[in-house]
Amino acid sequence: LEGHGNHKENSPFLNSSEAGKGGDYYDRNLALFEEELDIRPKVSSLLGKLVNYTNLTQGVKEHEEAESTDGSKKKVSKSPSMGTLMGVYLPCMQNIFGVILFLRLTWMVGMAGVLQSFLIVLLCCCCTMLTTISMSAIATNGVVPAGGSYFMISRSLGPEFGGAVGLCFYLGTTFAGAMYILGAIEILLTYIVPQAAIFHPSGAHDASSAMLNNMRVYGTVFLILMAVVVFVGVKYVNKFASLFLACVVISILSIYAGAIKSIFDPPEFPICMLGNRTLSRDQFDVCAKTIVKDNITVASKLWELFCHSTNLTTENCDEYFLMNNVSEIAGIPGAASGILKDNLWSNYLEKGEILEKAHHPSVDVAGQKNNLHLYVLSDIATSFMVLVGIFFPSVTGIMAGSNRSGDLKDAQKSIPVGTILAIVTTSLVLVGTLSWPSPWVIVIGSFFSTCGAGLQSLTGAPRLLQAIAKDNIIPFLWVFGHGKANGEPTWALLLTALIAELGILIASLDMVAPILSMFFLMCYLFVNLACAVQTLLRTPNWRPRFKYYHWALSFLGMSICLALMFISSWYYALVAMLIAGMIYKYIEYQGAEKEWGDGIRGLSLSAARYALLRLEEGPPHTKNWRPQLLVLLKLDEDLHVKYPRLLTFASQLKAGKGLTIIGSVIQGNFLETYGEAQAAEQTIKNMMDIEKVKGFCQVVVANKVREGIAHLIQSCGLGGMKHNTVVLGWPYGWRQSEDPRSWKTFIGTVRCTTAAHLALLVPKNVSFYPSNHERYNEGNIDVWWIVHDGGMLMLLPFLLKQHKVWRKCKMRIFTVAQMDDNSIQMKKDLATFLYQLRIEAEVEVVEMHNSDISAYTYERTLMMEQRSQMLRQMRLTKTEREREAQLVKDRHSIARLESLYSDEEDEGDPVPENIQMTWTKEKCDAEKRNRGSAVGSFRDLISIKPNQSNVRRMHTAVKLNEVIVNRSHDARLVLLNMPGPPKNTDGDENYMEFLEVLTEGLERVLLVRGGGREVITIYS
Amino acid sequence: LEGHGNHKENSPFLNSSEAGKGGDYYDRNLALFEEELDIRPKVSSLLGKLVNYTNLTQGVKEHEEAESTDGSKKKVSKSPSMGTLMGVYLPCMQNIFGVILFLRLTWMVGMAGVLQSFLIVLLCCCCTMLTTISMSAIATNGVVPAGGSYFMISRSLGPEFGGAVGLCFYLGTTFAGAMYILGAIEILLTYIVPQAAIFHPSGAHDASSAMLNNMRVYGTVFLILMAVVVFVGVKYVNKFASLFLACVVISILSIYAGAIKSIFDPPEFPICMLGNRTLSRDQFDVCAKTIVKDNITVASKLWELFCHSTNLTTENCDEYFLMNNVSEIAGIPGAASGILKDNLWSNYLEKGEILEKAHHPSVDVAGQKNNLHLYVLSDIATSFMVLVGIFFPSVTGIMAGSNRSGDLKDAQKSIPVGTILAIVTTSLVLVGTLSWPSPWVIVIGSFFSTCGAGLQSLTGAPRLLQAIAKDNIIPFLWVFGHGKANGEPTWALLLTALIAELGILIASLDMVAPILSMFFLMCYLFVNLACAVQTLLRTPNWRPRFKYYHWALSFLGMSICLALMFISSWYYALVAMLIAGMIYKYIEYQGAEKEWGDGIRGLSLSAARYALLRLEEGPPHTKNWRPQLLVLLKLDEDLHVKYPRLLTFASQLKAGKGLTIIGSVIQGNFLETYGEAQAAEQTIKNMMDIEKVKGFCQVVVANKVREGIAHLIQSCGLGGMKHNTVVLGWPYGWRQSEDPRSWKTFIGTVRCTTAAHLALLVPKNVSFYPSNHERYNEGNIDVWWIVHDGGMLMLLPFLLKQHKVWRKCKMRIFTVAQMDDNSIQMKKDLATFLYQLRIEAEVEVVEMHNSDISAYTYERTLMMEQRSQMLRQMRLTKTEREREAQLVKDRHSIARLESLYSDEEDEGDPVPENIQMTWTKEKCDAEKRNRGSAVGSFRDLISIKPNQSNVRRMHTAVKLNEVIVNRSHDARLVLLNMPGPPKNTDGDENYMEFLEVLTEGLERVLLVRGGGREVITIYS
Repeated sequence: LEGHGNHKENSPFLNSSEAGKGGDYYDRNLALFEEELDIRPKVSSLLGKLVNYTNLTQGVKEHEEAESTDGSKKKVSKSPSMGTLMGVYLPCMQNIFGVILFLRLTWMVGMAGVLQSFLIVLLCCCCTMLTTISMSAIATNGVVPAGGSYFMISRSLGPEFGGAVGLCFYLGTTFAGAMYILGAIEILLTYIVPQAAIFHPSGAHDASSAMLNNMRVYGTVFLILMAVVVFVGVKYVNKFASLFLACVVISILSIYAGAIKSIFDPPEFPICMLGNRTLSRDQFDVCAKTIVKDNITVASKLWELFCHSTNLTTENCDEYFLMNNVSEIAGIPGAASGILKDNLWSNYLEKGEILEKAHHPSVDVAGQKNNLHLYVLSDIATSFMVLVGIFFPSVTGIMAGSNRSGDLKDAQKSIPVGTILAIVTTSLVLVGTLSWPSPWVIVIGSFFSTCGAGLQSLTGAPRLLQAIAKDNIIPFLWVFGHGKANGEPTWALLLTALIAELGILIASLDMVAPILSMFFLMCYLFVNLACAVQTLLRTPNWRPRFKYYHWALSFLGMSICLALMFISSWYYALVAMLIAGMIYKYIEYQGAEKEWGDGIRGLSLSAARYALLRLEEGPPHTKNWRPQLLVLLKLDEDLHVKYPRLLTFASQLKAGKGLTIIGSVIQGNFLETYGEAQAAEQTIKNMMDIEKVKGFCQVVVANKVREGIAHLIQSCGLGGMKHNTVVLGWPYGWRQSEDPRSWKTFIGTVRCTTAAHLALLVPKNVSFYPSNHERYNEGNIDVWWIVHDGGMLMLLPFLLKQHKVWRKCKMRIFTVAQMDDNSIQMKKDLATFLYQLRIEAEVEVVEMHNSDISAYTYERTLMMEQRSQMLRQMRLTKTEREREAQLVKDRHSIARLESLYSDEEDEGDPVPENIQMTWTKEKCDAEKRNRGSAVGSFRDLISIKPNQSNVRRMHTAVKLNEVIVNRSHDARLVLLNMPGPPKNTDGDENYMEFLEVLTEGLERVLLVRGGGREVITIYS
Repeated sequence: LEGHGNHKENSPFLNSSEAGKGGDYYDRNLALFEEELDIRPKVSSLLGKLVNYTNLTQGVKEHEEAESTDGSKKKVSKSPSMGTLMGVYLPCMQNIFGVILFLRLTWMVGMAGVLQSFLIVLLCCCCTMLTTISMSAIATNGVVPAGGSYFMISRSLGPEFGGAVGLCFYLGTTFAGAMYILGAIEILLTYIVPQAAIFHPSGAHDASSAMLNNMRVYGTVFLILMAVVVFVGVKYVNKFASLFLACVVISILSIYAGAIKSIFDPPEFPICMLGNRTLSRDQFDVCAKTIVKDNITVASKLWELFCHSTNLTTENCDEYFLMNNVSEIAGIPGAASGILKDNLWSNYLEKGEILEKAHHPSVDVAGQKNNLHLYVLSDIATSFMVLVGIFFPSVTGIMAGSNRSGDLKDAQKSIPVGTILAIVTTSLVLVGTLSWPSPWVIVIGSFFSTCGAGLQSLTGAPRLLQAIAKDNIIPFLWVFGHGKANGEPTWALLLTALIAELGILIASLDMVAPILSMFFLMCYLFVNLACAVQTLLRTPNWRPRFKYYHWALSFLGMSICLALMFISSWYYALVAMLIAGMIYKYIEYQGAEKEWGDGIRGLSLSAARYALLRLEEGPPHTKNWRPQLLVLLKLDEDLHVKYPRLLTFASQLKAGKGLTIIGSVIQGNFLETYGEAQAAEQTIKNMMDIEKVKGFCQVVVANKVREGIAHLIQSCGLGGMKHNTVVLGWPYGWRQSEDPRSWKTFIGTVRCTTAAHLALLVPKNVSFYPSNHERYNEGNIDVWWIVHDGGMLMLLPFLLKQHKVWRKCKMRIFTVAQMDDNSIQMKKDLATFLYQLRIEAEVEVVEMHNSDISAYTYERTLMMEQRSQMLRQMRLTKTEREREAQLVKDRHSIARLESLYSDEEDEGDPVPENIQMTWTKEKCDAEKRNRGSAVGSFRDLISIKPNQSNVRRMHTAVKLNEVIVNRSHDARLVLLNMPGPPKNTDGDENYMEFLEVLTEGLERVLLVRGGGREVITIYS
């Protein structure tokens, strides 16, 4: 049990040491399950253990413990309690009503118009809502350790995706921190204390670059302060959370109040216009061309600025200034003023364009270039795409709700309802922004809320980094896994601060926002992917409690994420994907083997199953035939591979890129030998690695080796992935050994392959075959083509020559011409045939004339027959003796007899009568004579006349061997048709002898037998 | 042999009826191969047959015979003889120098400039050349029937791709016919007999639409004429071929001659310009504003046209006319005039723009709109992309060479050399066009050449269609497969003419050319794909004689094809791909099963292999666990499935989408029972289809059923695709039968699964299980959870409920509380556990108090023990008798003994001493008592005291059964822990009895045993 099924995962109910404790007495009621209760827990005791177990896996437990030392157990045992409002709606709103809304939403509406703004909000919210649904499904699919998307993804898609997504999420959060800090400073310097600015616009710097420098300086200061706060006491941050939340609630209420008030009583906020151009008011106070001062009309400051003179001359005046009037309009006209209709459509500007009010009276003249700084200019070029990137960070807060889905009372209801509420609220605010006033309470509120968000980011990001580092999937992050004594991740905080500083150096909120959008979108994309894949694969363990998910929704969410990424900025998108891809590959390269299990494995299982089911449609066409090898490997007593060169040979044949199965049989009883089989499989796999054989290994335990081989031949492979060729080692030393098993197994296997229509390869002297490191720089591969057997003989050298060992060998094909053959014509035909087969080979026809059977042949046949006769006789007497002894023993041992009885279905012996039916008359006579002699005793042995059939066969073997040795003695490899085994098992020993004679004196021989089908074709 | 490996392909060397002929006597030299020579040809006789065999496959042979009745054999036997010039270069040139070159190349150079024109030519030629290389590889990979790309693709990529490509090629060729006809008429009406025009430009029609109508009328007439010519006598068409070729050669020479002449002596071809605008000369003769007539300067015709008055007033004059001079320039200035430099860069025009000569002096004034018809205007909008589409048909001729690669003497050299020569020639002509004159010889030449090309298209296309129809892969085309008595494909010709008429009705050469470009490009794309796929898959039969191919080249070619398609017109490209895709899907849907073999199968083989190798990395994580079933099916004597409901049950469990293997064992000798096994496999597969089980089937032949099952359990599946759960039928009627085999096999299998760490499912009363058509609209699935066994009990109902049969059932989980358990707490814990498992189920805890063992239990145990004792005794005596008889028989039958001897490696009986080692003292004593009684005779049976362990077990079974029947008697299905088999085989019969007692009175029971690992997890 230990070896196979026991995973390292921390299971609360499978622990052998504990299970044994309570098991000293078995309950009488469960006596039938005694065997089980030895190793498995009783349900009642298992349930008892459930009460005080923690729902966190090992790695996370540490992580959690580091965070909150006071009993995570208690935390778990309290039931989920949060409702829609507190659990989803408010966290969403807190994040949405952050920096982007306060600082950028009004501007966004002004640029994109109400309709397109609404579209932007809708798109971003849809994306997040769909992701929320996917996330809810993942979050409710079992116990999720608190820790957000990183843990969910890594545990459900595997370490590679998890790591990539986790780092994206980390970078996103870190940049979010930078963004919040920048936002807070923008609020501070723009609304609260503009006089605190260090750099002021002057000749050298224009306004925006001065502002950026202010941001950089103050941002760095803020970042350091915040990092110190986080470092000193993270607990205070959490304490402040409710304060920040209160700020948000008050701000929301103020916005509505302001919007409603503005309908009836719009606030005073005059804006000075020149023609339809908006003037920047920081260089003058009075919005008029002239002032009546002491009853004298004098030039106003504005006149001075545009005309470069203090008196009322128009000499150097700007043409636009002269031709247009100065007017003052209400900056916040209130919702009732028709501003909604004016702002319905978009009005995107290029960078540096002058902000003009449509429909305002003006004369269209160019004006002087050097007066541009007097107008309100567009800071950056805007477009729908740019605004999407800037707005997206607002909605990332929606995920905050789903991250808590474990704590929700009714996640299925709360998440969608809360999210939709949040979206509706945002849309309403969007309309409200057109007319909201900017009271002190909102400014202060938004400043604190933004600071809070920044602090939370700086708290969260290092912890996420620490968690990733502790998972140890990205080795170079190990240093960030350590914490201080109080568990504070010092190094991680430092890195986070450094990365955030990068963001702050960028300084522009509008530049940083798209960066973090990318990282968050990447993360969301993977969340959706994880959900879609798991749903489509229908893994049994995918049973989310949250029911309202669907793969199509996840897929849609994924598509929106991808679209948003490329819409907002295709180059950032590519960079983000590149980063994620590099992390993925790095983790894969590092070979993280986590016991998390991943969805990707399920994917390859499905792929394999699908591909195999497609294949299951009959044998392939000759054109597609490739050798799919079943290599039968012999193991010695210590379970070592006896002839590893068989594997080398198989790997050299791999040019066919087909299947390779390495099979082996262990003799014994399966119930007892399972462990041994496992060990043997491991040995073989190691050897396969060494010999670079890519394939599968199959070790079976069988009572008899022969049966095991028969079963391997029958049942290896699956569907269309079945072997079609068996590689079998030669039974060396069969002649010396008294034990006939080895060669009987050999011939049995040959018969099996024939019956199963499989091709057979028998490499003889396999130990002399080249290793994978040798190179044959010259020499021949000789094919002796005697019977056309489907074309294996032609195909094999071609395949071998694809391997670097054999590449430089030349192929020669020999065939044998008889007396009545026209050998010249044959050679020509053979050359044509090979041309059509597209195989390059030298062709030779060897003439073999019918000669008389030599005395040597006679003698050799005689010797062979005598030897086998003698051995048979010896074995016979031995068996007889054993039988009798057995019977006597049986009578006294009932137990023994009983078990013998259980074998009553013993294998039926082949009935000789049956076989004779297929014989010719002549053979039958020979057989009778043969059998007659077999009955005789030792005395008869000398007077035996050799069997005529045997003599003829021996003659063939001797003559062929003579010719082959003569021509191919120096060949690197000789391929040869393998004669079929005799139909009658009586001739088995002679068959072995014939094969020996046939291949005598050749260094490396490969005996080849076709599988009864063509494997090579001249057709296209 | 017939059943398995014998394909229908027309192999010239594997024909059993013929092979037998020459085999009455065996050569003495080949006596060793007698068995082979019975069924296989001797090499010498095989080679003999090669001489007079045809190199065409069956389907094609008919096709060829229909075409040329005079001996295709003779045609084949003549060796390939064509050289580079005749075989590749001239066919290429004939096609390139067709209609496009004569009619459009000059215009193209004018529009796109020399550089971009060169780029267009290069791109198109590259595409074709790369395709040519791929095509050469395919063409030299074995004997290709003449028939061009259709046969090559269909035979190498399979019928689906072949059909799609074939039809694309057909449509391309047909539209090419239309294009040639349109081209011929354009030549006729523009250069030869302009007065033959029927429609003339007038008020209603402008010039171009009149021309189009002329084209439509003449085109239809030409088409009908040509179709009649093809119908009447295709032989004349081939006769004309050499005449057309001669025209081409002369034209080429003329072009060069003209180009060279124009350097020294440019021809007169004045063009009239107004400012830098080219005037259309068909409404006036004299190129001047005024004419001096009788010494009086009067207004010329030109003046009249522009000023709408015949006297020299400037009142109503066109402003542009007044401000610019009229001049005359040389239309063909000759290569020396610097025209090459002027035309270096592109000058694309919109439709209707006035053709202006750059650098010509002019005053830029707008001029009157109604005078536009006086200038030369641009016919169509041009751009690089449009020109690519129009030029591409020129280069399609390059493939003509490679189609003949079979006839080439040295294809490896000829094809690339010829193609490159053709490209160079085209490039030179491109330069030449800038200055060539238009002598009569070229016009006539090009007219005839174009007509010839049209005729050839109309001849080839119907034959291609006929070939596709005869292949019968697209059933609705069958009618086009028929031919007239003389083999002429009448219907196909009719269809071709109709489609060509469509092209002619479009009328504009510039509109038709891109259409056929698309179809040809589609075809080329697939040729490249076929080559790339085959090269990458390394199929052993992919051995082209043409060596200079590479997958990267094919891939590049494919990319260029795709790029050209989308460059020239993305919507045409999409339509063409849609058409090809629809044809593909249609053929796939029709399920064409051709014996051609396809590369796609190789692809899925590789995919399956890759996916499986990826999986081979240890068992999956609990999270990814899914039931992979091995269903052990019993067959009756007629090889029918005994309990098909087992399959139904397996299909209802398929929600896990895992692997399903159906295994079965046939008792017998493998060598003799192979056919039977094949038949059984087919039966099971049919049954699997009926029961909608998607999976694999594996039938093995074994001497003993038990051994066969053990082997199936060990060796089914491949790599990571191994079963983890065994489904086993209950051995019904084991109690009635005297034969202990069935239940011994059952218990043996249970032990095997335990040893192999597999889960086990035993559905009892499987015949009562619901079929796939039933629906349970109510009712419960009851789980009796007694031992925690990895969670199978919880997972199975969940999986079953995914199937529509069980969807509406409710799940109930019962567990048993003992005396000392707190059942209320247990129920609460169980509910929590199920919540965390995300499984919805009703929870019940059943209290079972320790009660005394009833008399019934005692009695039942006693009966059980007596029965088994009796049976054992009976069998013992029977065995003894048989043994003795056997021995006597043996002494008289040596043959029999011998074969018995061959079983000397018989399985060792389990040694009882060994097993006792693991026993407790108490059990050992019980066993001794038991054994002691076993030796006793029938007399002792009555006095036996039941074994204590048995009594306790029986007690459990009785009590549990009581409780289960009480609570779950009306459940749709009862799932129950299956007790493990006794460690000692002595108790086997009792074990069966216990199981029977445990499940008595329940309609449908599923006994479940875990595989020693967790299969369900509360973790995410």
